[in-house]
Amino acid sequence: MSDQLAQAGSHATRPRNADEELRRRARAVIPGGMYGHQSAGPLPPEFPQFMRAGLGARVWDVDGNEYVDLMCSYGPVVLGHRHPAVEAAAAAQAELADCQNGPAAVMVDLAELLVDTVRHADWAMFAKNGTDATTTCCTIARAHTGRSRILVATGAYHGAAPWCTPRLAGVTAEDRANLGYYTFNDLASVVAAVAAGPEVAGIVVSPFKHDAGFDQELVDPEFARGLRELCTQTGAALILDDVRCGLRLHLGSSWEPIGVMPDLSAWSKAIANGHPLAAVLGSAAFADAASSIFVTGSFWFSATAMAAAIATIGALRDEGAIETMDRAGTALRAGILQQAAARGVAVSYTGPAAMPYLTFAGDRGHELASTFAGAALRAGAYLHPRHNWFVSAAMTEADLAAALAATDAGFAAVLERQASR
Amino acid sequence: MSDQLAQAGSHATRPRNADEELRRRARAVIPGGMYGHQSAGPLPPEFPQFMRAGLGARVWDVDGNEYVDLMCSYGPVVLGHRHPAVEAAAAAQAELADCQNGPAAVMVDLAELLVDTVRHADWAMFAKNGTDATTTCCTIARAHTGRSRILVATGAYHGAAPWCTPRLAGVTAEDRANLGYYTFNDLASVVAAVAAGPEVAGIVVSPFKHDAGFDQELVDPEFARGLRELCTQTGAALILDDVRCGLRLHLGSSWEPIGVMPDLSAWSKAIANGHPLAAVLGSAAFADAASSIFVTGSFWFSATAMAAAIATIGALRDEGAIETMDRAGTALRAGILQQAAARGVAVSYTGPAAMPYLTFAGDRGHELASTFAGAALRAGAYLHPRHNWFVSAAMTEADLAAALAATDAGFAAVLERQASR
Repeated sequence: MSDQLAQAGSHATRPRNADEELRRRARAVIPGGMYGHQSAGPLPPEFPQFMRAGLGARVWDVDGNEYVDLMCSYGPVVLGHRHPAVEAAAAAQAELADCQNGPAAVMVDLAELLVDTVRHADWAMFAKNGTDATTTCCTIARAHTGRSRILVATGAYHGAAPWCTPRLAGVTAEDRANLGYYTFNDLASVVAAVAAGPEVAGIVVSPFKHDAGFDQELVDPEFARGLRELCTQTGAALILDDVRCGLRLHLGSSWEPIGVMPDLSAWSKAIANGHPLAAVLGSAAFADAASSIFVTGSFWFSATAMAAAIATIGALRDEGAIETMDRAGTALRAGILQQAAARGVAVSYTGPAAMPYLTFAGDRGHELASTFAGAALRAGAYLHPRHNWFVSAAMTEADLAAALAATDAGFAAVLERQASR
Repeated sequence: MSDQLAQAGSHATRPRNADEELRRRARAVIPGGMYGHQSAGPLPPEFPQFMRAGLGARVWDVDGNEYVDLMCSYGPVVLGHRHPAVEAAAAAQAELADCQNGPAAVMVDLAELLVDTVRHADWAMFAKNGTDATTTCCTIARAHTGRSRILVATGAYHGAAPWCTPRLAGVTAEDRANLGYYTFNDLASVVAAVAAGPEVAGIVVSPFKHDAGFDQELVDPEFARGLRELCTQTGAALILDDVRCGLRLHLGSSWEPIGVMPDLSAWSKAIANGHPLAAVLGSAAFADAASSIFVTGSFWFSATAMAAAIATIGALRDEGAIETMDRAGTALRAGILQQAAARGVAVSYTGPAAMPYLTFAGDRGHELASTFAGAALRAGAYLHPRHNWFVSAAMTEADLAAALAATDAGFAAVLERQASR
């Protein structure tokens, strides 16, 4: 153990004693020491496992190390940590009640606000996980059509239930029996997938291609329009998985800028600036199917997260947060691409400005990305080597400067690694 | 519409204008007006759909009507609404951060506390819904055994995902293809179910039979021991679904008093006194399987609910809450049975003292139960005609007296209805 600690410690120039001690304790009571997308196990050794606090665009780990936050809790934090109006709304609701025998009035307020905010939405249902939302969309599509088959893009992430989790341990063949696969941005592949089996209940699609570990790909508007037309022709539901992108790229569904309306959409992450909430939105034609299914959860009607969501959407609108994130993300991209060019490092910087991802030419095993992320982390920016990043609306000029100083340290480390090869 | 309102209004002797107005708005933006277990649609017309506040064992609807709470938010509220120590712990954690790039230290503290508190548990994982917990138990059992088939008791509720939701709209045959069924408390039926198909990965069982709408049935210890032995012999995981009962009947797994240890257990509801949290606990033998699967959620690592859970378990222990609930529930049972006997109404009052359920002889359509519940509600007790009730540790003598005054009004209404037949 002490050897392991010493080895891990050698990577760090910042204190990490508290993190190591918590990891040691976690290994005794949590399988694998941690699980899911927040396991630091697969991250570079510099990364802390345990976090202490957040404020605006800054976060602190349990050893007190400070970082500019370019992960935003993997998406939920969109206005910055502990946004005053959101926290005040949540606290005020919590003073009355959270989980009750029935929903609070804020549930109706929030449903109305979402229907007003999201163009394709005539109704809303709420849940707790993004996976709840994507799964419920599929169930509604099946109830509506009386069909079973759902199409998804190969490699796309739509949650971690047995039907969609990216790891197959514990998953049965029957969990995937009703899935068909297409290639994102390739309409012919969708047409082929439709033709390859029984009639399709729904087609699930992400607003853009953001599969972990790969260059991101914006949607081709022709692909989106073709999908819409195909769904209308075949009677399948067009299901937009807006869990990761929703309310970060547009104040409404992420495909509104290209004018394509899904029948159903799944939301979570940013909807309440970190408070636990998910939503399914849908068009009037799917309301009967939505009311015919039975989905529920002990905390799906809880009021605090709904009050936080109302405040979040209000602040996104009133503070021009979408534009702020786009502007900060655009400046980040410009700065990083300038750094890469100045150092002669060949990179790919893909995705929307507020949800970028950086890869290095020829870096198939993500070694250079890990070197970059580890060095950037040591220099004070929390970003990820294999997952897209997230820019919040709390990013100030000072945060941006600090982030770019850290990414420059990342590029220096990449050059050093390349030189030592 | 106005006729409908007038008709509904005629049942009420208490104000309900705000509730009716919210229902009207909800019908426009929420499928069916409401969904899931908190839809008031199937409840007697006296019941409010929307709630405003809670404190201790009292709750208020949006029209300000006050009730003694015998539903406890369908289980989550165990110490009473807005328990000071729980809310203080949650608020203190929220002051630092909730949803971050990694879990907070409280995740390790809580995992250790659960391992210390629950005898069969060597490790813990956290999620948001009871359904997450039961589903994850099945996935771990499948990963551990390499088998697919799961046995459940006919009519038992284990959540609302496609594999387990009680309504089949939108559910495919494949979602249920790997399930087998047995009868609760009938070991021979389990043996037969095991023999009737491929090898079994796991057997899911509730601590006692609490199927909605039926008299409850405590577990026969011989049945539980037989299940344990059968699982050990066949290599199947014994999965205790402690989502509804956990931490209300015993400070530990609900089968500890009868000495039967499951391999895996699912928890949610009462674990954080209303804050959204679920947990999977398991024995050391299943830790490798648990770490082999990929399950996660955007809010599964959030710290506020974990801080609330630590405070909840501490208060349950320090305040002798389990004993308080048993005592209050025992007094409630005695009072209600006395009222029934005094009025000559034939009833069945079943289940543990803290989770009772009342049925009326011959009342197959729950008409008498609805009359009783509606009248009790008008008289100031919130209880349910088709679902077990929950007693919290906040029940005072005054709350108990108020509850019994309301149930007596309920019996009077039942007699009146019987007389008018």
